[in-house]
Amino acid sequence: MHVISSTVSSVDDAILSKVADTVRVLAVDAIEAARSGHPGLPLGCAEIGAVLFGEWLRHDPAWPAWPDRDRFVLSAGHGSMLLYSLLHLSGYALGLEELRRFRQLHSLTPGHPEYGLTPGVETTTGPLGQGFGNAVGMALVEAMLARRFNRPGLAVVDHRTWVLAGDGDLMEGVSSEAASLAGHLRLGKLIVIYDQNRISIEGTTELAFTEDVAKRFEAYGWHVAAVDGHDLGALRAAIRWAVSDVSAPKLIVARTHIAYKSEKQDQAEAHGAPLGREAVAALKRRLGWDPDRAFEVPAEVYRYFDERRKAWRKQAETWQRLWEQWSASHPELRRQWDEAWSLEVPEDLVEALPAFVEQKPVSTRVAGGKVLNAVAERLPYLVGGSADLAPSTRTYLDGKGSVQAGQFEGRNLHFGVREHAMGAILNGMALHGGVRPFGSTFLVFSDYMRPPIRLAAMMRLPVLFVFTHDSVWVGEDGPTHQPVEHLDALRAIPQLEVWRPADARETAAAYLAAIERRDGPSALVLTRQDVPVLPLEGPDGATRQRQGVKEGAYVLWEAGGGPVDVTLVATGSEVSLALDAARSAQAEGIRARVVSVPCRERFIAMPPERRERLLAAPAPRVIVEAGVRAGWGWLAGPAGRFVGVERFGLSAPAAQAAQEVGLTKERVLAAVREAAGKQAG
Amino acid sequence: MHVISSTVSSVDDAILSKVADTVRVLAVDAIEAARSGHPGLPLGCAEIGAVLFGEWLRHDPAWPAWPDRDRFVLSAGHGSMLLYSLLHLSGYALGLEELRRFRQLHSLTPGHPEYGLTPGVETTTGPLGQGFGNAVGMALVEAMLARRFNRPGLAVVDHRTWVLAGDGDLMEGVSSEAASLAGHLRLGKLIVIYDQNRISIEGTTELAFTEDVAKRFEAYGWHVAAVDGHDLGALRAAIRWAVSDVSAPKLIVARTHIAYKSEKQDQAEAHGAPLGREAVAALKRRLGWDPDRAFEVPAEVYRYFDERRKAWRKQAETWQRLWEQWSASHPELRRQWDEAWSLEVPEDLVEALPAFVEQKPVSTRVAGGKVLNAVAERLPYLVGGSADLAPSTRTYLDGKGSVQAGQFEGRNLHFGVREHAMGAILNGMALHGGVRPFGSTFLVFSDYMRPPIRLAAMMRLPVLFVFTHDSVWVGEDGPTHQPVEHLDALRAIPQLEVWRPADARETAAAYLAAIERRDGPSALVLTRQDVPVLPLEGPDGATRQRQGVKEGAYVLWEAGGGPVDVTLVATGSEVSLALDAARSAQAEGIRARVVSVPCRERFIAMPPERRERLLAAPAPRVIVEAGVRAGWGWLAGPAGRFVGVERFGLSAPAAQAAQEVGLTKERVLAAVREAAGKQAG
Repeated sequence: MHVISSTVSSVDDAILSKVADTVRVLAVDAIEAARSGHPGLPLGCAEIGAVLFGEWLRHDPAWPAWPDRDRFVLSAGHGSMLLYSLLHLSGYALGLEELRRFRQLHSLTPGHPEYGLTPGVETTTGPLGQGFGNAVGMALVEAMLARRFNRPGLAVVDHRTWVLAGDGDLMEGVSSEAASLAGHLRLGKLIVIYDQNRISIEGTTELAFTEDVAKRFEAYGWHVAAVDGHDLGALRAAIRWAVSDVSAPKLIVARTHIAYKSEKQDQAEAHGAPLGREAVAALKRRLGWDPDRAFEVPAEVYRYFDERRKAWRKQAETWQRLWEQWSASHPELRRQWDEAWSLEVPEDLVEALPAFVEQKPVSTRVAGGKVLNAVAERLPYLVGGSADLAPSTRTYLDGKGSVQAGQFEGRNLHFGVREHAMGAILNGMALHGGVRPFGSTFLVFSDYMRPPIRLAAMMRLPVLFVFTHDSVWVGEDGPTHQPVEHLDALRAIPQLEVWRPADARETAAAYLAAIERRDGPSALVLTRQDVPVLPLEGPDGATRQRQGVKEGAYVLWEAGGGPVDVTLVATGSEVSLALDAARSAQAEGIRARVVSVPCRERFIAMPPERRERLLAAPAPRVIVEAGVRAGWGWLAGPAGRFVGVERFGLSAPAAQAAQEVGLTKERVLAAVREAAGKQAG
Repeated sequence: MHVISSTVSSVDDAILSKVADTVRVLAVDAIEAARSGHPGLPLGCAEIGAVLFGEWLRHDPAWPAWPDRDRFVLSAGHGSMLLYSLLHLSGYALGLEELRRFRQLHSLTPGHPEYGLTPGVETTTGPLGQGFGNAVGMALVEAMLARRFNRPGLAVVDHRTWVLAGDGDLMEGVSSEAASLAGHLRLGKLIVIYDQNRISIEGTTELAFTEDVAKRFEAYGWHVAAVDGHDLGALRAAIRWAVSDVSAPKLIVARTHIAYKSEKQDQAEAHGAPLGREAVAALKRRLGWDPDRAFEVPAEVYRYFDERRKAWRKQAETWQRLWEQWSASHPELRRQWDEAWSLEVPEDLVEALPAFVEQKPVSTRVAGGKVLNAVAERLPYLVGGSADLAPSTRTYLDGKGSVQAGQFEGRNLHFGVREHAMGAILNGMALHGGVRPFGSTFLVFSDYMRPPIRLAAMMRLPVLFVFTHDSVWVGEDGPTHQPVEHLDALRAIPQLEVWRPADARETAAAYLAAIERRDGPSALVLTRQDVPVLPLEGPDGATRQRQGVKEGAYVLWEAGGGPVDVTLVATGSEVSLALDAARSAQAEGIRARVVSVPCRERFIAMPPERRERLLAAPAPRVIVEAGVRAGWGWLAGPAGRFVGVERFGLSAPAAQAAQEVGLTKERVLAAVREAAGKQAG
């Protein structure tokens, strides 16, 4: 570890110091006005913010979407007022009036930074460790796009990813996982500044966090330096050190004092509670501000950033010219660039999908792997990987190479057994732009990565989550590996679409629908076991099925010959089970309809009349799914039945396990008879 | 890091080598018979297992529940056949016939080790990293109980916790979190053997895991040694080194070869697929076994363990005498010991609960803190803590001190910002026995710890999870901190009971019911905001309410004067909202009943007739809860309404946030009118 002291001074120190104090004043004023917020970090990291935004960040507030901008991630999202203050001073479209409305209804300054709401905010943070993982994803995509698009003398992708992370971020396992992978991949343009204030909510970090963080990051392969986080010259020198080499990610351990310069310096309560009116006034007096005025920004601070803004604009214009030159000399690359940044989906993508034939049962994970590979041929920006389960989840892109340190031309990522980091990194990749990321693991391990799935949904990121081994049909591996509640738990997340296709063809159609959705994440839930390829009727059967899948539900089969006695509703591997039962019911004189529901979210979003028609209302319903009933109850209705799994699974050969928990044709048939009001035939 | 080579030889090496090869043969035979399983680890860790079970483990197969036994945790649970083979050889009640039924329906040898099923299995493992976290909890409780119960010359608690962990375990964030805390607490009797075979499912760990694990653990404060994992003498020396000092946890990096001695040595496919008949025969020939016989155990191996078993028995008897001597000289301690190991709950615990008065609204988290403190006074074995949120979750036990390295007399744990490890550690604490553990964080962060919550439920561990800040009423912190889907997602986990009390009194009653439940985990879900203390009617109102809470649901209020027009069903902070609406409805001539449902699991478990009576069937229902509808749909029925939150929240003062998402009396009242079939009055 390098220890960097203040050897580099600058004429800018006086103004940067003023910038830092302005950030302090804006932050405490906003928090005081809201009577809510976290002053500790903005006060403690004001110098870090001033040096970073004042001297180093390569961005253009007039063009927040500049593809080659540096990304700055405030992983410690509770310090949002640091970021809002700096965005305001830098000249983003975030006026003082928004800072005055900090944490108020419909302001641009919510309690934690929210992506898509506030210009300049690169990701939604707050749940600790997530931003750190996002940043690893951003730095990874930077390296991948640079490899893909840069040409000699024409480096159209060349930017850094900066993170400000706190003690809490670095205690979370997700950041450990992400840091290990970043070190492995030697992401040399990732720079993390660690706000080591040694205070957490319960008190000093001596209570729970006494590890040697610097040594830990060195063990991951990072380069580490330590610095006084309030010393502008030392911070500048540390950042100069960090940008001088791109052979490894950098951690700058900045020793700071929480709530620096205030009465509550070094106190845990400064973390998340307003300082109080008197302490704010005292702080202002100490800083040379008028205690009776709020949200005061010295004119020289605005002037300083006016100058900066001109320089930033110039940088962006220089890049734009470079990019136009590059476009002119590499029109095909430019075409690919446009396609990648817009996530353009060719209209004839459907024709690239593999065909699957009846008479040849195949697991939907295997079918999914074929579909994913076919899609990847047409979408060069589709990249992804697995948390060390690709041979099982079947998501490896054949012939597309692996991404490794110095080998960023590959399209297959090896996340290691790090589901949580995988999720956060996928989000960061999508946030960066220029790629469409996917990641896979077993459905049961979606529990390891719920926080980033939730954030992907909240941010409406077009991430594809692929979850295989989706029920007790996992078999011998037993209850720890058999999901029963996970479908329901995923479907509970707003704005996430969960696909559980019934067979190979539905899998292709579901992938197509998920790829076409670009305003939110999708989860593909696939079987381990082989399932029949369901019969299609009529010459346009395949087209109608694809349309039905896209709409979330469709009539797969119907006995005919009269009104429907019972409607069977099923998903995934239980559709063929329902079909079997429906056919047997027909022999008993019960006319059943089978409705396949590959995507419950879309089914629910249908106009109610349409949904009722699909269900052949008022026919009683039998719902079949290898999981808990919870979210299906509303659909079953009082006369309906649910055949599912309301218990943990068990270790046994798959068919026996399924039988043991009651996933049998007999049980479905019995439910059909009951619903139809008939005794066993 | 110490590098330990084979300097210590022993006359036992020949027999231990035979033990190791026996383990190999039993493992591959069982996996071959099942045509399913993971041979790589048992083959690669056979020497580790032989030395550990053959020489070091302090246990008694005739008394698997011996409180002072060493705990052995196979964190890499897929290597279950290593454990089953060693348990069989050691003399646990696990016959060869069970090994023959590996992974079969209702055998004692499921795919991954399951606690409560197989004698000698200390915890359910398989989801990687969890066992590591459990072991930290076990070692922690050992230290706490030793401090509490040991007296000079009478060390009734003095055992070690051993872990066998693989590359996958150490890639998972949960193990990083747990290791950091174990180092912080200097749990010197925790010994982790790291099976470093450098192979994971996708191939060599060079693909994704090249960090310096030894250095990382040193950074956590662990002592680390490296050793050849196939060298019996070196392993013995390493373990001798590990047990010779108790000032820090130990990591023994055992360099091994996956599938050692087989044809598939060092190959990734050996991880999770049977070797195949021919490879098994070849292996047996190489080891000197008859390739045509299966499950063969050399007589000298059984004889060796016969001798060991006598020694183990003697150890246990010696302990028993010590314990009886201790009991005689410290009868009060003995009484506490019995109470702690049986988790005895005094019948009059209810009298210890604090009283809460109407007219004084209080958040259920604050009420819960008071209840927890009152209960802790009566239950000295109740210990727990928070993931750095105690000042907010209010779970600190006043005056009970903090647990720190060398200060194990405290009862408050500081988990740091490590929710996932907290969950795994709580499970390990419960598994060890002698304590009743609780842990707290915000409800939204239950997502960070779902895997251990699921395992607590699967193992039926009496863990108390306390989740506060339970809705959009969190307010200014915004959508990242506002749970909307978490109640539903938790309730989807089988065998978990989720409590969401409506007010301070219900909180006390819910805690009481959760404390009385000892065959599974409970989650207490509590508000951040103040809620009214609901009125009780009649002199026995409090008793009836407590009984109602215990049953999961009860009638809180009814308009009277005729049959019920509408039944309002609500939980938590929405009960008072429902009550308000019901009273307003009464003024409009609608007779409503309000049913409070503090525990949906218990409500659902009621006999249906009783449930229908409670609901005043066939009155239409309006359900009110600050979360997604999913699991309530079945109850609402076709004429029913649900007033909830089907979207992410938003940052604003709490009441405004609640209004914005529609949690208003007006909306509830409108739903009541609709359900009652009446137009707005």
